Amino acid sequence: MDLVIMNGHLVYANRTIKADVGIEKGLIKAIGKLNNAQAVERIDAKGKFVFPGIIDVHNHINHIGGENKTKDDFFMGTRSAAFGGVTTLLDFAMQKRNETVLTAIKRRRSEADGKACIDYGLHGNITHLDKESLESIPKIIEKGYSSFKLFMTYRKAGFIVEDPILYEVMQTVYNNNGIVGIHAENDTICEYLTDKYVSAGMISPKYHARSRPNIAEAECISRAILFAEHTGSALYVFHLTTHEGVKLVRDAKRRGVKVYAETCPHYLTLTEEVYDRNDAQNFIMTPPLRKTEDVEALWEGIQDNTISIVSSDHCCYDTVQKKIRSGQSFRDITPGIPGNETLLPIMYHYGVNSKRITINKMIELLSLNPARLFGMQQRKGSLIPGADADLVIFDPDKKVVLDSNEIHMATDYTPYAGMALTGYPVKTIFKGEVIVSDGVFRGKEGAGRFLAREKPDFF
Amino acid sequence: MDLVIMNGHLVYANRTIKADVGIEKGLIKAIGKLNNAQAVERIDAKGKFVFPGIIDVHNHINHIGGENKTKDDFFMGTRSAAFGGVTTLLDFAMQKRNETVLTAIKRRRSEADGKACIDYGLHGNITHLDKESLESIPKIIEKGYSSFKLFMTYRKAGFIVEDPILYEVMQTVYNNNGIVGIHAENDTICEYLTDKYVSAGMISPKYHARSRPNIAEAECISRAILFAEHTGSALYVFHLTTHEGVKLVRDAKRRGVKVYAETCPHYLTLTEEVYDRNDAQNFIMTPPLRKTEDVEALWEGIQDNTISIVSSDHCCYDTVQKKIRSGQSFRDITPGIPGNETLLPIMYHYGVNSKRITINKMIELLSLNPARLFGMQQRKGSLIPGADADLVIFDPDKKVVLDSNEIHMATDYTPYAGMALTGYPVKTIFKGEVIVSDGVFRGKEGAGRFLAREKPDFF
Amino acid sequence: MDLVIMNGHLVYANRTIKADVGIEKGLIKAIGKLNNAQAVERIDAKGKFVFPGIIDVHNHINHIGGENKTKDDFFMGTRSAAFGGVTTLLDFAMQKRNETVLTAIKRRRSEADGKACIDYGLHGNITHLDKESLESIPKIIEKGYSSFKLFMTYRKAGFIVEDPILYEVMQTVYNNNGIVGIHAENDTICEYLTDKYVSAGMISPKYHARSRPNIAEAECISRAILFAEHTGSALYVFHLTTHEGVKLVRDAKRRGVKVYAETCPHYLTLTEEVYDRNDAQNFIMTPPLRKTEDVEALWEGIQDNTISIVSSDHCCYDTVQKKIRSGQSFRDITPGIPGNETLLPIMYHYGVNSKRITINKMIELLSLNPARLFGMQQRKGSLIPGADADLVIFDPDKKVVLDSNEIHMATDYTPYAGMALTGYPVKTIFKGEVIVSDGVFRGKEGAGRFLAREKPDFF
Amino acid sequence: MDLVIMNGHLVYANRTIKADVGIEKGLIKAIGKLNNAQAVERIDAKGKFVFPGIIDVHNHINHIGGENKTKDDFFMGTRSAAFGGVTTLLDFAMQKRNETVLTAIKRRRSEADGKACIDYGLHGNITHLDKESLESIPKIIEKGYSSFKLFMTYRKAGFIVEDPILYEVMQTVYNNNGIVGIHAENDTICEYLTDKYVSAGMISPKYHARSRPNIAEAECISRAILFAEHTGSALYVFHLTTHEGVKLVRDAKRRGVKVYAETCPHYLTLTEEVYDRNDAQNFIMTPPLRKTEDVEALWEGIQDNTISIVSSDHCCYDTVQKKIRSGQSFRDITPGIPGNETLLPIMYHYGVNSKRITINKMIELLSLNPARLFGMQQRKGSLIPGADADLVIFDPDKKVVLDSNEIHMATDYTPYAGMALTGYPVKTIFKGEVIVSDGVFRGKEGAGRFLAREKPDFF
Repeated sequence: MDLVIMNGHLVYANRTIKADVGIEKGLIKAIGKLNNAQAVERIDAKGKFVFPGIIDVHNHINHIGGENKTKDDFFMGTRSAAFGGVTTLLDFAMQKRNETVLTAIKRRRSEADGKACIDYGLHGNITHLDKESLESIPKIIEKGYSSFKLFMTYRKAGFIVEDPILYEVMQTVYNNNGIVGIHAENDTICEYLTDKYVSAGMISPKYHARSRPNIAEAECISRAILFAEHTGSALYVFHLTTHEGVKLVRDAKRRGVKVYAETCPHYLTLTEEVYDRNDAQNFIMTPPLRKTEDVEALWEGIQDNTISIVSSDHCCYDTVQKKIRSGQSFRDITPGIPGNETLLPIMYHYGVNSKRITINKMIELLSLNPARLFGMQQRKGSLIPGADADLVIFDPDKKVVLDSNEIHMATDYTPYAGMALTGYPVKTIFKGEVIVSDGVFRGKEGAGRFLAREKPDFF
Repeated sequence: MDLVIMNGHLVYANRTIKADVGIEKGLIKAIGKLNNAQAVERIDAKGKFVFPGIIDVHNHINHIGGENKTKDDFFMGTRSAAFGGVTTLLDFAMQKRNETVLTAIKRRRSEADGKACIDYGLHGNITHLDKESLESIPKIIEKGYSSFKLFMTYRKAGFIVEDPILYEVMQTVYNNNGIVGIHAENDTICEYLTDKYVSAGMISPKYHARSRPNIAEAECISRAILFAEHTGSALYVFHLTTHEGVKLVRDAKRRGVKVYAETCPHYLTLTEEVYDRNDAQNFIMTPPLRKTEDVEALWEGIQDNTISIVSSDHCCYDTVQKKIRSGQSFRDITPGIPGNETLLPIMYHYGVNSKRITINKMIELLSLNPARLFGMQQRKGSLIPGADADLVIFDPDKKVVLDSNEIHMATDYTPYAGMALTGYPVKTIFKGEVIVSDGVFRGKEGAGRFLAREKPDFF
Repeated sequence: MDLVIMNGHLVYANRTIKADVGIEKGLIKAIGKLNNAQAVERIDAKGKFVFPGIIDVHNHINHIGGENKTKDDFFMGTRSAAFGGVTTLLDFAMQKRNETVLTAIKRRRSEADGKACIDYGLHGNITHLDKESLESIPKIIEKGYSSFKLFMTYRKAGFIVEDPILYEVMQTVYNNNGIVGIHAENDTICEYLTDKYVSAGMISPKYHARSRPNIAEAECISRAILFAEHTGSALYVFHLTTHEGVKLVRDAKRRGVKVYAETCPHYLTLTEEVYDRNDAQNFIMTPPLRKTEDVEALWEGIQDNTISIVSSDHCCYDTVQKKIRSGQSFRDITPGIPGNETLLPIMYHYGVNSKRITINKMIELLSLNPARLFGMQQRKGSLIPGADADLVIFDPDKKVVLDSNEIHMATDYTPYAGMALTGYPVKTIFKGEVIVSDGVFRGKEGAGRFLAREKPDFF
Repeated sequence: MDLVIMNGHLVYANRTIKADVGIEKGLIKAIGKLNNAQAVERIDAKGKFVFPGIIDVHNHINHIGGENKTKDDFFMGTRSAAFGGVTTLLDFAMQKRNETVLTAIKRRRSEADGKACIDYGLHGNITHLDKESLESIPKIIEKGYSSFKLFMTYRKAGFIVEDPILYEVMQTVYNNNGIVGIHAENDTICEYLTDKYVSAGMISPKYHARSRPNIAEAECISRAILFAEHTGSALYVFHLTTHEGVKLVRDAKRRGVKVYAETCPHYLTLTEEVYDRNDAQNFIMTPPLRKTEDVEALWEGIQDNTISIVSSDHCCYDTVQKKIRSGQSFRDITPGIPGNETLLPIMYHYGVNSKRITINKMIELLSLNPARLFGMQQRKGSLIPGADADLVIFDPDKKVVLDSNEIHMATDYTPYAGMALTGYPVKTIFKGEVIVSDGVFRGKEGAGRFLAREKPDFF
């Protein structure tokens, strides 16, 4: 075999076993006691965990938001992910005004191919819908883009998808066994409150949170669930943040609606109190950070399977881009925070170390469920012979204090600076190659491939 | 006493008793065996029912819709109501663009005072909300307008109230113990489908129904319930029409949301099949007529108290106004149908005769509940000593075939033409005066008074 | 007229009106302004409430429990009730071992007829069921006994009705439109715990409560609801006491099961803490008194209509009979407390004065609902012309400290001794006769009649 | 390695992979591409499925029911299981009158040790509960008996466990993280109806079904769920058979009760119509076979995870023992049918071939879930390196017509005789040894070991 990872504790969604992993030609060849097997190279993972490669399903790389372009391109963005144990990421093909969905896909493929150092896929991000685009949905799904994202907000920016379009997309996607995701914030509520605060001179970042209240998210989730129930469509709630939303998703699941929810590390570890800090603007993202009761509800949602996936919502601006300039208000700050590198270590420390979830549950949230729901299960998401040899070797004892100088994301800050974590990935193996080893990148620009995804395996 | 109604069967929400009704100075003076009492006049109601005066909470009199003004003013509109046993009606004070709510109220009062021949009240109909109007809500409620109506549709016409306004109105109304009503049709869905059908040349009336599908109503009800649940506000769903809506209201009531629903006789007796008729345009109203399964669900909703009130939604255009002219489509027909005269007889025939409801339940729907929910219970809604002497003498054996030539509404048609009914009001008594007697109007223009309503008695 | 009650505030379930009540030949003749009516006698009720006569649906008069017979016969028991404003009471025809239900009815009728000074009815109390008794149920219902009671406990005493019998009775009663009531305490749980405590020497009254825990009641209610749901039968839960039971009944009602619940004043005002008192034995009844959280849940159940009726469960032993003799334990105390005289004043003081319920709601619980559910609505339960002239004149300002020397029940104690109440009945009028006036009994032994009851009017 | 299974399709609960399985010293050593590995023996499983060994959690071997002892001892009973692909089975240690639970365990261990040819475990079967037995529960769980069974029926036979005992056992088991199973049939209902039919001369087998109606099962499930909810205990419903029961379990799961349900192949493939056959007595088991709507509900319960496990409830009487002798009725037939050999093939044919479940779901029901819920997951239930090398090689194309002459169970009949199945196990491998190969038994009496089970892994 090309490589054998010896003596590690292999983590599955339902159990942990002590076994070796044999790798050949980029695939997992065997799992078990492989001390006698011939091997070109051996890595001793004694005392370490071996995870399937992390799958971060929510990234915005090489993304233009308002007047700002993220600091990373697909090489930088996938490299920072790799440092965090991510071996597959999903980003978006977001329609511009003059594009069809297919054109947007083509454009994004050309930005990523030859650049990405890990595998990537794209959600179709519909921002308007001509007849041609609607009719192309079956073909798009067939080609490997089985998931879509629609904004229920951002009318001013021209991204909002109105109810009849959302409904029609759901009908079509349902007929083709895909899944429809939403960004759930009620546009008129957020715009009304933003105008109200700004016009009253309440322009500091804390009004960002107040202008996008819980009810704004809850209303959109409620509406989308109604449409999903009516059409039969599967629904994916991107970045769920509120306790009201958790309840809506839980109740809908219980009555049989095919709804799945995602949240992000920042919603699980930070609260709106950061908006009183001097660097508050660096924490501006949409939806905003919430209250402690919401954080608790999200963890409960994870514990009872209301929430199926945790992703980074990585959007890599730097502090210069995030600055509020004179005459500006919170509404002028481009939303988004960097995070694909820190996804896994934060979930380990705040989830597993804090006893909120087991290590097996963590792998379900970060690898198995993403692979199943987004049609990658044949090759990704579990340490199974025949699968891609995407693995993370994780040292549960390694102590790291997060520091903006030490991260590899293309920015000068991390919202988690100063957090003292125990447990960190030490090697990232992508298709059998060690691409990160003890803080050194050994991967190759362009080694990642576009991943044509199958249809969801609904669970 | 001035007048004693002898020997009638008095109908209450919970029972029917045989008793006389003594009237003095416009009020009910006594109920019981009054054969020995002195009386100026006696009416023998032997073999007849005596109802409390019907309260029709949903009228559009002297109303301008699109380019058409209804054919009735407040005299004609209240007179036709009186022919149908109605002794109190509620209409709307609908804001024009340049009006505050209070100005609209003043305008409507001036249209009705001196004209109405029965008592009337007004719902505040908010179509836009400046700060002044929002702040005036407590005062408006205090002055006798404890209920409001907001459109969740009609963006083009400028009537739609967006979510944040609806939410704020709910908060304010809740704090002042009033009730918020909604016209529930999702605007973007209806507009999108209307455009779609019209642009495809599908312009006949049946596309009116298709362009305003069940989900459009259900979505708005669902959204308004969420806001009501969140704010604590009481919610009134005007003209509920769909089985989905019935379920949403029922479920919300069961979990304790203060939501009340109304439907109308046309939704209980007609279906969208009429849109295939030659005179289909005369049946255009919003929401449109639905399918048999919806009709059945509405009756079930009445039976299990999901629906609390039946009203006419009277809007009195004639067939000339309803005509589709060359180059026009269904969207050009002003919606609305006449109906305050036929409300009671249709409910009796299709409800009581058909064994769907008891006669007591009918009185609950048409008189007691309207009085309680809309703050008139001190004077209206039940045959109680001290209350206004508003009564209907109803002959359960009288047979009437509805005929546009025989009705007293200011129009040349009725959607129910040809219906053979058994049971009809024979006398309407308003504040002790017989204002309709066997088809002859004896009331007086201007005898009706504006009714300053109390706060709702939530049940 | 024979009698006119002038100027009182007449209390209905939904409103209070100021009116006179005219009475003739034992019936209410008229309600209204009757100052001009001729009258043999007038009573001025100015500043007082006029209630319909209270209906106490749960009494055990002339009852043998264990070795004790209650101290009252039907004269004494109905007289004490009359002092409390009760004008109709229901008791039980409880089968003895060798009796059919019909024989038991005959026996009880002979005990009551000629004795009772107010009207009375009987629930059929089935303790065993031969084929003949089962087949006689339709006839029994027809004869005016439309309600039944079955014990789900007391196996030792031979009263328990096992599941198949309960189920069959429900089927039969359902087919004949009656209602089945239960005493809900799980026999094996209570017996097991009683044995356990007694055999461990824990014999004081507080172990009475511990040996009959909440789960014992909840389990029986749950089981009976399941059977009611399966058979379609209406179910009446006698003396509901636990928060778990309230929840079970509430949930069942919400899903459409025809279940009704009753509680009693003692469960609404006392807790198990009294079992630490020296006179603890005087508070022994089944089910036992509970905790504060249960008391609160019962009031909530009243407020949201989960509980429909409040009754006394009057069982009139004296302190000699309740005594624990040497060598005895709590299990040897005959359960039951006196209470038909105090039902109304306690509900007024702790319900209405304490703002837990309105005075209208109180009348619904104590008069209207009992009349409707137990088939007496044609003659009882509301101040309606034509109904029996059963009334209570109630002085809301009268202050009474409950005192065992002042009560008229045939016993030497009241569990409420020392309670300072505001509000008390001052006159009880039965079929037009003043039978209690300011503490003086003026009624007649035997003036009460057996009341053949109609079928329930399910609400 | 000792043995390599080559080229099979390995079936997991969530996926199927093509891989080899390497076995050494009775354990799975490696999974993957093992063509280069050294191996003492190789089996080619090309075109075949490789399952983890089936775990049949419900057997009655060497069991005395009424006057009959099953025809099999632990050698015969485990051997027949092995023919059906079963490599682990659970049986019961059922208390006799004079035994403690621990004594019963000891007795059963002595019957099985040295006999069983596959691994076995025992549920503690409590039929009465002295203080000593109750106090021994923690120790029993610690020793490897983490699951219990209690009868809610069979009072006459002395097996019934009354409510307070069930409740106390639940409390104790909950505190020690075990699980309580029930046989759910309401004793008084079944006894009452049995007496009724038998005394009316309705003695043929079809009255067996009628005397144990759906409500009898539903009531016990409902009651046990209430106790589980109240105590926090995990509940296992043995042999669920009714659509009412499915609903109760589903609803309880949705509100968070830790309840798990099992059904059996006969309830999934046969209906009460067989009770009209001449050999009806051979189909007598408790609970009885039901109607088609129940069968459908059970499959739906499997599909939506309401039912977690399918077991055989194997009880091996022969047709002589099942015979109804003169003067006897259905109640004299010892209930129970043979089935551990046919469990897997029937589930494959009627589940997988009929498209009701996937092959992965089947393995979840027959191996993974049993291993998790009954504390065997460290060694059993999934094809994982390090686990016991218990495997089944299954030929999906093999056609078998079930025939009582061809089965290996110690009886002369099978209820499924004549069924034409496609798909059958061809080799059973137990701890690395091929113990059944193409219909030939090669295992060893006594090679099976008692399995001390861990605590449940609740899912």
